[in-house]
Amino acid sequence: MSLVEDRLAELGLVVPEVAAPVASYVPAVISGSHVYTSGQLPMVAGTLAATGRLGAEIDPEEGARLAEICALNAIAAVKSVLGDLDRVIQVVRVTGFVSSVPEFYGQPAVINGASNLLGKAFNGPHSRSAVGVAVLPLNAPVEVDMIVEFK
Amino acid sequence: MSLVEDRLAELGLVVPEVAAPVASYVPAVISGSHVYTSGQLPMVAGTLAATGRLGAEIDPEEGARLAEICALNAIAAVKSVLGDLDRVIQVVRVTGFVSSVPEFYGQPAVINGASNLLGKAFNGPHSRSAVGVAVLPLNAPVEVDMIVEFK
Amino acid sequence: MSLVEDRLAELGLVVPEVAAPVASYVPAVISGSHVYTSGQLPMVAGTLAATGRLGAEIDPEEGARLAEICALNAIAAVKSVLGDLDRVIQVVRVTGFVSSVPEFYGQPAVINGASNLLGKAFNGPHSRSAVGVAVLPLNAPVEVDMIVEFK
Repeated sequence: MSLVEDRLAELGLVVPEVAAPVASYVPAVISGSHVYTSGQLPMVAGTLAATGRLGAEIDPEEGARLAEICALNAIAAVKSVLGDLDRVIQVVRVTGFVSSVPEFYGQPAVINGASNLLGKAFNGPHSRSAVGVAVLPLNAPVEVDMIVEFK
Repeated sequence: MSLVEDRLAELGLVVPEVAAPVASYVPAVISGSHVYTSGQLPMVAGTLAATGRLGAEIDPEEGARLAEICALNAIAAVKSVLGDLDRVIQVVRVTGFVSSVPEFYGQPAVINGASNLLGKAFNGPHSRSAVGVAVLPLNAPVEVDMIVEFK
Repeated sequence: MSLVEDRLAELGLVVPEVAAPVASYVPAVISGSHVYTSGQLPMVAGTLAATGRLGAEIDPEEGARLAEICALNAIAAVKSVLGDLDRVIQVVRVTGFVSSVPEFYGQPAVINGASNLLGKAFNGPHSRSAVGVAVLPLNAPVEVDMIVEFK
């Protein structure tokens, strides 16, 4: 087991299996020394952990917890193509999409749920964009994708 | 003509000319072994094929057809800088923005219109994020950008 | 001082200091020969220059001015990791998120505020996506991130 997974285990987290690839796109792609993950929803064992928007059905604390699940799924997507997560040099870019009512301005605190987990799992910080969107697939509250550099 | 264009021709599709570059940004940029396209709208001969949002004026089947047009325009953008589309090794990342009313959750099926075309035109699958946004330029229903790796 | 900053000075603009990094993410990350910036809001001396959405509190001209501030902050983020801005070869990709009411379709003109500044500061054009989103962090009207290639 990788050191990354050891650190996650200390947080009580296990890297899940990735869902089976669908037809034309896959959870992650290797290009050069980078892995690009697909946008990850807060799926747990094939089901969304919650549905709804921030500022309505989902409060910021729950949103941050869901963003952490997205990040864990993104780690799983990276593992699916790299095998060993200790090959990751750094997380380069994280994009966090937060399903938001127009009056909800707290997207950064929500995406911190992903950023904090990634900071603990890997060495060093990442660049990040967090935005509020009208709606996400399956009415998911959060979606996170990332680019990592590996050796 | 490239094999990529042969495969598109079998689907009845022709790679269009790209619109003339505007001042400060262009349809695509080469950086290292990657091409980054600008966000592509479903323009046909300089006019949007449709306007409106998913869940309102546009139904999912029409949305998927429009996403396919976006992907074809993204292929045209890649061709504008690479010349020969057979230099493409793989599509690395696709981002699909779907103009959506807040109750529309079917963004993945819409962006499948782009993903399926790219899967047929090029070898292998890609990573992808699909999100619902409040509104897109010119009231376009879909916008797609991508990163491809070439040799 | 870099030639880039000379050109900005001719426009009456000074590259600001970047805000202190927060816990898990930072204003910019170097990976290979690219810098990825975090999403930049129109902050001036630590405060948002304006709040609200395009099509409501913010008109397009003001939006373009705010997008220019975002771009200036993105330049500052690049400088924070490269030191000398003349090491930038080109701006590869700009993504512009415009906080928009659903009836506002003028995102391109808003993000031109960023693109035009980047075109003047650096050599050559970039690829770009501009989308309208429901809401942005802190009720910011615009958010811009970018990828630049350097030597």
